[in-house]
Amino acid sequence: MTETPDPETLAQRVQDGDLRLHELDDEVDAVTAAAARRRLLADETGADLTTVADYAFDAEQATETAVENLIGGAQVPMGMVGPIQINDGDDDGAVSGEKYLPLATTEGALLASVNRGCAAMRTDGGATARVLQNAMTRAPVFRVADVGEAAEVAAWVRENFDALAETAESTTSHGELTSATPHVVGDSVFVRFAYDTKDAMGMNMATIATQEAAEHIEAETPAELVALSGNLCSDKKPAAVNAVNGRGRTVSADVTLSRETVADVLKTTPEAIAEANTRKNLVGSAKAGSLGFNAHAANTIAAAFLATGQDIAQVVEGSNAITTVDVRDGGDTLYASLSIASLEVGTVGGGTKLPTQAESLDVVGVRGGGDPAGSNADALAEVITTAALGGELSLLGALASSHLASAHEELGR
Amino acid sequence: MTETPDPETLAQRVQDGDLRLHELDDEVDAVTAAAARRRLLADETGADLTTVADYAFDAEQATETAVENLIGGAQVPMGMVGPIQINDGDDDGAVSGEKYLPLATTEGALLASVNRGCAAMRTDGGATARVLQNAMTRAPVFRVADVGEAAEVAAWVRENFDALAETAESTTSHGELTSATPHVVGDSVFVRFAYDTKDAMGMNMATIATQEAAEHIEAETPAELVALSGNLCSDKKPAAVNAVNGRGRTVSADVTLSRETVADVLKTTPEAIAEANTRKNLVGSAKAGSLGFNAHAANTIAAAFLATGQDIAQVVEGSNAITTVDVRDGGDTLYASLSIASLEVGTVGGGTKLPTQAESLDVVGVRGGGDPAGSNADALAEVITTAALGGELSLLGALASSHLASAHEELGR
Amino acid sequence: MTETPDPETLAQRVQDGDLRLHELDDEVDAVTAAAARRRLLADETGADLTTVADYAFDAEQATETAVENLIGGAQVPMGMVGPIQINDGDDDGAVSGEKYLPLATTEGALLASVNRGCAAMRTDGGATARVLQNAMTRAPVFRVADVGEAAEVAAWVRENFDALAETAESTTSHGELTSATPHVVGDSVFVRFAYDTKDAMGMNMATIATQEAAEHIEAETPAELVALSGNLCSDKKPAAVNAVNGRGRTVSADVTLSRETVADVLKTTPEAIAEANTRKNLVGSAKAGSLGFNAHAANTIAAAFLATGQDIAQVVEGSNAITTVDVRDGGDTLYASLSIASLEVGTVGGGTKLPTQAESLDVVGVRGGGDPAGSNADALAEVITTAALGGELSLLGALASSHLASAHEELGR
Amino acid sequence: MTETPDPETLAQRVQDGDLRLHELDDEVDAVTAAAARRRLLADETGADLTTVADYAFDAEQATETAVENLIGGAQVPMGMVGPIQINDGDDDGAVSGEKYLPLATTEGALLASVNRGCAAMRTDGGATARVLQNAMTRAPVFRVADVGEAAEVAAWVRENFDALAETAESTTSHGELTSATPHVVGDSVFVRFAYDTKDAMGMNMATIATQEAAEHIEAETPAELVALSGNLCSDKKPAAVNAVNGRGRTVSADVTLSRETVADVLKTTPEAIAEANTRKNLVGSAKAGSLGFNAHAANTIAAAFLATGQDIAQVVEGSNAITTVDVRDGGDTLYASLSIASLEVGTVGGGTKLPTQAESLDVVGVRGGGDPAGSNADALAEVITTAALGGELSLLGALASSHLASAHEELGR
Repeated sequence: MTETPDPETLAQRVQDGDLRLHELDDEVDAVTAAAARRRLLADETGADLTTVADYAFDAEQATETAVENLIGGAQVPMGMVGPIQINDGDDDGAVSGEKYLPLATTEGALLASVNRGCAAMRTDGGATARVLQNAMTRAPVFRVADVGEAAEVAAWVRENFDALAETAESTTSHGELTSATPHVVGDSVFVRFAYDTKDAMGMNMATIATQEAAEHIEAETPAELVALSGNLCSDKKPAAVNAVNGRGRTVSADVTLSRETVADVLKTTPEAIAEANTRKNLVGSAKAGSLGFNAHAANTIAAAFLATGQDIAQVVEGSNAITTVDVRDGGDTLYASLSIASLEVGTVGGGTKLPTQAESLDVVGVRGGGDPAGSNADALAEVITTAALGGELSLLGALASSHLASAHEELGR
Repeated sequence: MTETPDPETLAQRVQDGDLRLHELDDEVDAVTAAAARRRLLADETGADLTTVADYAFDAEQATETAVENLIGGAQVPMGMVGPIQINDGDDDGAVSGEKYLPLATTEGALLASVNRGCAAMRTDGGATARVLQNAMTRAPVFRVADVGEAAEVAAWVRENFDALAETAESTTSHGELTSATPHVVGDSVFVRFAYDTKDAMGMNMATIATQEAAEHIEAETPAELVALSGNLCSDKKPAAVNAVNGRGRTVSADVTLSRETVADVLKTTPEAIAEANTRKNLVGSAKAGSLGFNAHAANTIAAAFLATGQDIAQVVEGSNAITTVDVRDGGDTLYASLSIASLEVGTVGGGTKLPTQAESLDVVGVRGGGDPAGSNADALAEVITTAALGGELSLLGALASSHLASAHEELGR
Repeated sequence: MTETPDPETLAQRVQDGDLRLHELDDEVDAVTAAAARRRLLADETGADLTTVADYAFDAEQATETAVENLIGGAQVPMGMVGPIQINDGDDDGAVSGEKYLPLATTEGALLASVNRGCAAMRTDGGATARVLQNAMTRAPVFRVADVGEAAEVAAWVRENFDALAETAESTTSHGELTSATPHVVGDSVFVRFAYDTKDAMGMNMATIATQEAAEHIEAETPAELVALSGNLCSDKKPAAVNAVNGRGRTVSADVTLSRETVADVLKTTPEAIAEANTRKNLVGSAKAGSLGFNAHAANTIAAAFLATGQDIAQVVEGSNAITTVDVRDGGDTLYASLSIASLEVGTVGGGTKLPTQAESLDVVGVRGGGDPAGSNADALAEVITTAALGGELSLLGALASSHLASAHEELGR
Repeated sequence: MTETPDPETLAQRVQDGDLRLHELDDEVDAVTAAAARRRLLADETGADLTTVADYAFDAEQATETAVENLIGGAQVPMGMVGPIQINDGDDDGAVSGEKYLPLATTEGALLASVNRGCAAMRTDGGATARVLQNAMTRAPVFRVADVGEAAEVAAWVRENFDALAETAESTTSHGELTSATPHVVGDSVFVRFAYDTKDAMGMNMATIATQEAAEHIEAETPAELVALSGNLCSDKKPAAVNAVNGRGRTVSADVTLSRETVADVLKTTPEAIAEANTRKNLVGSAKAGSLGFNAHAANTIAAAFLATGQDIAQVVEGSNAITTVDVRDGGDTLYASLSIASLEVGTVGGGTKLPTQAESLDVVGVRGGGDPAGSNADALAEVITTAALGGELSLLGALASSHLASAHEELGR
């Protein structure tokens, strides 16, 4: 019986050029391979990776689904905010009730801020939230001979949607193709495919389905595929196409606060918050040439994405968000809303299967597929958006009462 | 002697309204407080938070610096890429030599992709990388009476830079104010303060220094501060002001690959990569109304930020990046570059002090303050940018050889 | 019988406050009213308006359709470019044959530049051009109570397209509503209505039709109209919504030039033009945070708009254009294209009825309504785009051969 | 003595290929050459160009400075607005007093709208206007070997500003180089040169000066010039670099109106105008991914540019404008402002020398060079911005009172 080689021996073999880093997984189990890599890093860099080694997930599963060249785990402190009260009088499928949300971050004061906003919202009966669109996209780019051919291909795509949908959907048991929009730039034709991917974030599903659809286009038209992603998707880049047309979930949440709640919880007035929002989030962002007209929605989104196993690089699209604030009823109330154009979330697949992430989804009550399909991801989108609205209210309140720096001084680093 | 209350009792007191969630930290130690919160969540949501509880950092420290309402840790699988070879013939301070970089992610195939690109670069002698600018910004917005007063305030700011610098720098032992640029929109005056924050990411340092400078402006001019951040900073929002003028580190990396390396490692040709880059990253992003002309730089940046304790919401700005590719020498070589306009990194403060993150910085060899000050953060910026360039090359190669979907099928979820 | 008052007397009455400027049109004929206003300006400012008075259009007609407070005419030198050869082998309705285009401008060297490009294109058989989309838009903004109501209104709009189309089209004999897309931001609902307006530029037609449709929405939903234009149209503003989704005509033109033609006519090489295009129009515009990835398309568009009676403020949208250049056939040929996302043109209505403008449309052969309806405006769009492509080629050639400043020195001011 | 050939003969020679269109100017005087071209167009297209032939400017001068291949003139109806009252209590050089402004357009209702806004402003004591920055830019792009060399070149530019200024200014008697900012993207280095061009719009002056400076950079560094304009200028393209950093004149104007004036002149309330502005100009433009947060500033700018001899293609940059509106004093007053980031105007050179245009400048009182230099162009910028603010107020008022379509129906086509 062969013994498992020890990490030192394995690290030496890699250093000797006898093995490549990723081949360790072919030689030994994932735990030992990770140990060997840590040993190699210790030798090469002097780093002591004791805490990295102290992870709580299954190394084999992580190696198969999440990461290559595993060395261990990154650990980020996680706290909780809530209850987040979301109302849905109409019972139309949107999330309703009190929710808790785990947030993982290294930014001191963030959770306190979000929680303060959630408290303010809760005090006055809670927020309303709605998913307005569900459309994960992938946009391949094709090469054509000239603009005449481009026009033909674009026309073909418009006229053959049903056939493309059938092809695309043949690759997936859940996804539905909802639109396929051609865009022509000279001898390049981009087709932006949009899918309802139910409870999955859906990037992978959309990619596989689009691969089939792209081959269909190649078979039926003179177009030749150049790249399965042509950046009109647009994944993990700041892009107006997402801010205008949406990607993943398009979600809005809003709340009406009383003057008293603004005073008691946010320590300021409706007028001061409205002024800060207009000058900063609207006029300031306008002057900055921004696609993000909010205070710090990305903070809450990033922390929620990290906690619940989302793709944290997609915080980029999540930041395409607009915060509006309005003083109403002669100053008696403050209306505030947050609308996120492209929030890409899922409750199945990807990082949601990892243990701390799955446990976090359990806290929200949305782990796995929903009933009906898509309802769990919708609910998660609504909870995150509402929490982010809380974060907006709290930071606007802090700015309005000039406490930003001092809040950081007290709570931060 | 008083016994520490048990988590069950504490959770019950919170549920009874006798204690608020964050007040647990006043009653008991951080470990017990976290346990009490997990108990409350278990009661309220049925979630079993066993793995969340299995964290490896110091709960007290986490509570004091990173997170409020601690419940435990989020764990993300972490792997390694490298060696990343970066050359610096001129010995001008830029990073040089072979580096390893830990990356934490849940996106299967990402590390394999980045590592393949790093291997290609290493094969042909490595990359070059440079930090071109170092400018953490904060831009308060002031209210003035009218545009006449706005013009006066803007002129005052331009004429009193030295005094503002003295004021701002009085709050920090390291930071230097490098510019203060006024922008007027009607009765709002924004002043974008830029700082050299050395090895700190510097958002907090910049905020505190700007608070002082803003008070100075209020004292000397008719301007009244409305918000310490007026979104011309612009923090965690997709904004042209950062893409054009930079924020944090502005960094470029590039490499020249031989045709053979492109064929052997990337399985395609220089021409195919160049075509994919032009149609996707340049023309596609142009058509998308994007500020990100790259394939997936945010993926590498997000994974590196998570591993090394950066602020992951700042991946938003990191995605303001342009990838260029050029076939040279009659097809014998492929030139590729990645230029990131606003990469906000630090090696001191914030999340860099947490144990897995600090260990990761040790792997890169840049933990803590550099000598000279700022050199560690510069080096980290250069290593991340070079790794991201590797990721660009690999994904472009995969797209060019039509392997995107199948790569995900094999390695992904 | 009452005599017509003389201009002096009338001017004096205005100066005395007895008449307002625009009331002159109620007192006397348009010619006399204009003379009275010139007299007033001469008195008030000392300006001698002799040439302004020497106009060649009908003053009554101008007063009724184009301008209020008429004082005379602005005259801009007009030249011609051409023949512009456009091929359409497929006979699919796109413009074909040789066309001349009048251009009015004060920018010396512009026509010479455009004409040089047209000559290059003509030398190698001409260009291809296609209208890819025809969609004049108007997007009212409605107020709703909250995001719940916003979701209801958005759903109602999606489900009642046919009824909205019937309502909108009841106001027009030509226009067709082709889509109505709702966008929600908090308690604001925007609906972007798109119309096929045939040979009219269509802004007015779209506005009137949308007024009816907006009232329909108000009648059937809780939405209340705030503004008939909510800036998602987006008219005369630089906006990604137009660059991505198109407005008016979306048009592309392209051409393939031989190496010889590039050398003989453009005085440079395909490689040099391609490099200039990549670094300037793609990478430079990317770095500039631009929606216009071209050299100077707006120059040709502005001059053509002025000559042919278009709305010159819509040059703003016309500049949402992408120029691509590609060296092909191992350097033997140069492919170049120009794709304009939002070119708003008409051959009926508005300024097209004025005499010099109508004569210019006769030069192009597209005055009045086309057969089939829309074909004249399509043809004009294709001719302007092709001429602008000529301008792109010529300027890129001049830049590539370092002649920009000297060309201006010779031909300009 | 040789007789001048008649137009018919000349046209025939061109049609026979004996002469090229532009060579007509070498054969005969400009008037006859234009007649010959009209004859050729009549032959080729059947167009009767009688009105085009009826121009009032000097054909020789037009041929030398404004247009090639002259065929005649485009005539656009011109009206007047005013008095525009601008106050300058501080006597700091900004324009002051009552001004009239000629506007040339084919958009019925535009002048009535602008004039209504001017009347409202005049009723309450007039507007305030300020030029905040004066910076015509030109940004060449250079090729370098790699990012290492790019960093060197960028550093050289920063360190040698004085030498570059001396070189650039050697080409001009008026212009001053005020900044030179390097931007690196891979192996491209862009340098954005900004100039104070006094009373000239300055594009030509900036181009010539930059040509010299670029040669200086080529001589002193390894950089090689690829294109004298690298699109970071950015001329006649919608670009954030201009919206954020300014180009030409950066100007703001504002006014405070009483509730009575809003009711009497604009037929609505301060609250209704503020709501329309927020939902349309701020939130709507935000959602549209726009750089223009205004109602129709481009309309006024285009009409003023056409009347006063500006470059109408630069309306593109002019539309980078933000309108803000605020209800003050408990509803007693309405504050409104318009801030244009990049308004490129001149009172000398270019189209300002043409007769109708020069006469229009006389109406404003700013023809030719000002004293001090630059003051005439400053004044023109302030007058146009104030008139455009009037247009904003009037259209917002019309939208708020739901009269847009009906106003067009009455006054338009």
